[in-house]
Amino acid sequence: MEMRDIDDLPKNAANYMALTPLWFLERAATVHPTRKAVIHGSRTYTWLQTYQRCRRLASALSKRSIGVGSSVAIIAPNVPALYEAHFGIPMSGAVVNTINIRLNASTIAFLLGHSQSTIVIVDQEFFNLAEDALRIMKEKSQGNFTPPLVIVIADESCNPKTLKYALGQGAIEYEKFLESGDPDFAWKPPQDEWQSIALGYTSGTTASPKGVVLHHRGAYLMALSNPIIWEMNEGAVYLWTLPMFHCNGWCFPWTLAAVCGTNICLRQVTAKGVYSAIAKYRVTHFSGAAPPPSVLAGMSQKGFRVTHTYGLSETYGPSTVCAWKPEWDSLPPETQARLNARQGVRYVGLECLDVISTQTGQPVPADGKTIGEIVFRGNIVMKGYLKNPKANEETFANGWFHSGDLGVKNPDGYIEIKDRSKDIIISGGENISSVEVENSLYLHPAVMEASVVARADERWGESPCAFVTWKPGVDKSDEQRLAEDIMKFCRSKMPAYWVPNQ
Amino acid sequence: MEMRDIDDLPKNAANYMALTPLWFLERAATVHPTRKAVIHGSRTYTWLQTYQRCRRLASALSKRSIGVGSSVAIIAPNVPALYEAHFGIPMSGAVVNTINIRLNASTIAFLLGHSQSTIVIVDQEFFNLAEDALRIMKEKSQGNFTPPLVIVIADESCNPKTLKYALGQGAIEYEKFLESGDPDFAWKPPQDEWQSIALGYTSGTTASPKGVVLHHRGAYLMALSNPIIWEMNEGAVYLWTLPMFHCNGWCFPWTLAAVCGTNICLRQVTAKGVYSAIAKYRVTHFSGAAPPPSVLAGMSQKGFRVTHTYGLSETYGPSTVCAWKPEWDSLPPETQARLNARQGVRYVGLECLDVISTQTGQPVPADGKTIGEIVFRGNIVMKGYLKNPKANEETFANGWFHSGDLGVKNPDGYIEIKDRSKDIIISGGENISSVEVENSLYLHPAVMEASVVARADERWGESPCAFVTWKPGVDKSDEQRLAEDIMKFCRSKMPAYWVPNQ
Repeated sequence: MEMRDIDDLPKNAANYMALTPLWFLERAATVHPTRKAVIHGSRTYTWLQTYQRCRRLASALSKRSIGVGSSVAIIAPNVPALYEAHFGIPMSGAVVNTINIRLNASTIAFLLGHSQSTIVIVDQEFFNLAEDALRIMKEKSQGNFTPPLVIVIADESCNPKTLKYALGQGAIEYEKFLESGDPDFAWKPPQDEWQSIALGYTSGTTASPKGVVLHHRGAYLMALSNPIIWEMNEGAVYLWTLPMFHCNGWCFPWTLAAVCGTNICLRQVTAKGVYSAIAKYRVTHFSGAAPPPSVLAGMSQKGFRVTHTYGLSETYGPSTVCAWKPEWDSLPPETQARLNARQGVRYVGLECLDVISTQTGQPVPADGKTIGEIVFRGNIVMKGYLKNPKANEETFANGWFHSGDLGVKNPDGYIEIKDRSKDIIISGGENISSVEVENSLYLHPAVMEASVVARADERWGESPCAFVTWKPGVDKSDEQRLAEDIMKFCRSKMPAYWVPNQ
Repeated sequence: MEMRDIDDLPKNAANYMALTPLWFLERAATVHPTRKAVIHGSRTYTWLQTYQRCRRLASALSKRSIGVGSSVAIIAPNVPALYEAHFGIPMSGAVVNTINIRLNASTIAFLLGHSQSTIVIVDQEFFNLAEDALRIMKEKSQGNFTPPLVIVIADESCNPKTLKYALGQGAIEYEKFLESGDPDFAWKPPQDEWQSIALGYTSGTTASPKGVVLHHRGAYLMALSNPIIWEMNEGAVYLWTLPMFHCNGWCFPWTLAAVCGTNICLRQVTAKGVYSAIAKYRVTHFSGAAPPPSVLAGMSQKGFRVTHTYGLSETYGPSTVCAWKPEWDSLPPETQARLNARQGVRYVGLECLDVISTQTGQPVPADGKTIGEIVFRGNIVMKGYLKNPKANEETFANGWFHSGDLGVKNPDGYIEIKDRSKDIIISGGENISSVEVENSLYLHPAVMEASVVARADERWGESPCAFVTWKPGVDKSDEQRLAEDIMKFCRSKMPAYWVPNQ
């Protein structure tokens, strides 16, 4: 159709800007400069201080040639520096590459190499882990290795010896690094909202983790969707039990700036730490992995209101919600639990969600029975996997993002997972590749066959469980000793939480 | 800088879609099909029904050749059809052109001609007004006039004679029109989020109103900003005291779908109607024009929590908010009132707000004294004025949208209006052009000189006040009679609320 007057008005500098969550931080610092933005133990930063620290970080990175196209890795638990990384790194133009602290050195070595991170920010608790990873990278590099600059985060829990050692190895202390930056640095918002903002690795069915790339537009939209889904009002107080390195904390770092709320950091998540923070700071929200029904029931009794969401790193974290209906209020608890355990409906920021036949690609009927693959389409679906055209082609086939999860569509339109087409075990919210665990088991001299499956776990939701057969000639008189030997073997090959247990 | 791997991931059908608030309606109908979406007197429509009615409307319009590039006008108070128009018209690809019911026939004739609306939906109460407007259009057309199709809305308040008359004139009844449409119509989301969604006319300093064109992207972003600014949670109950024809009800029609809330329509805003609705439907939110401090104080005493916002049709409605700070809680009421009367800080969906020198174009210091023009930049700034390149050039000069309002920036960053550079009087939230009123006064045979200014008004905030001098020879013995004669004269030339009063 012809362009008519009504549409013939071009974009200009006043009415079009790239969407980015970075402006939320500038706004929070303007509106509530003295409000507490980040609390970590005895340390507190206001929104103005947080903004200045992030600008310093962006400035210091820029001085080290970090900019558009760069990746900066960070290996840290939920400390203020990790929060700041979600703003300061993109404010330099670069991509924030958050790394799971529970990974082992060889996996981290792979990630740092794959992401081409030239700066690594690491919490002192994980300095040795980072050091091991860099050593592996160097060994594998055949003499062609430029070590990244290491910035070490040292808070009050830091052992002075660790810090001294790190500095001796050429690391720069994080606070010193910030001091080298300008608190009034003129950070550059992205020119294009499709520019990448974050990179996070997810375990797939194959040996190599895949790098999920997110963009400014999606991070902005997810940040504005969260308050609606979670009923999070201006000034919300968010307790960081969910690791910020996990899908960028479901974009909550940016949401908290949008609502000018307060972030409560916890280096370690303990029951005491959680309850103390709730009492002390009047916490309004916290998130975590989907717990088993028994834990859900217990939380409900204690007065927690649980919102059940589902998603993947590829969808900026949760992008479906089991939206509670008032008509469920009067149902028996078991019925409520069954209804609320479903994956539900799409987030307000997601355009399309469906369950499609793996044969025909057509939507399955909403009968609660016909199984198909859960698929997503819209603006909170990732840009793609980094340097992995084959995986991108498969995952984006036919105009859908393919989750790999198998489910049904219920008559009320709520989707529900029934199985996974990918062999993934989700333990404490983190993916474990059953194939990769099996591959390691096969390396053990006594193992003939191995199969790894998910086992229901009261605490973690699922945990890996291995079935093995022994090679001929193996002494089977003490199977307990054999099992222990295999678990020890696994611990040397994979993150501790991946190790099958008894 | 070179494009690197991290940014080299193209858009595809699964991860990029045009932003539009229309998806919110589809989602509300899926998630809460039986929840009340729109209540109007004894009539109630659920979200599923509302979605079906909007699809019928889009379908019926499509059958009449309405599509991308078309404008459909609607002249109605806050009745369900006006709510539906905000979805059904854009779902056909067209632009919804909401018309202020308080305008006179000649102004409406101008608007209908300027917007090239080929279909006009009109509430029965305003059928005669529309008829008069069309007659004026025909008279001025010099025989080259194709009358638009008229759809008449007839609810329970409708006089059967009016309806019969309208149908006799060739109008189609709105419900009949919907029946001609398909409730399962495959509406087409916009291909480009820059596509226009709404057109609304605003009174400026010159005789011709300017047509403000808004796009799907901005409407989406504003719809998601509102819940954060107004602390509007899922299932909010919104009372329509603000006319939906006024800046598209500040985008609240789309916000209500995003939060799956409930719209309470009021044909006429009366104290009884407002209080009854609050009691009956447990209203959580309503909006209106900024009241004078005396009214604000009274509302506060009655338990209303007032959020003060400011904006223009050109910024999708309010795009600044006087964000309340907890530290103001303990201040004396007069100080609170003074602080909260300021225009404040930018909306979360607006990227930049400033006060700039009208001489240098540079930001004024945040001293609360230096006056400059309030300017906006970002994604909730209009596309531009329809068919008005000169006005667009001026209003978008130097990368800012120029509001025409003069103000200061306070030391806390909050902006505050001090004066208007444009001669606009804002009465009950609607703009009145003082120049246009003056121009009419000059047409009166007794008037020598005329000057129209804003007068503080207990009820309307401002009302127009005229100063005149008489021509030589005018009998000044009865000035009261002269004044009454002039007011009568004005009533024939302009909307009733524009008429200066004593």
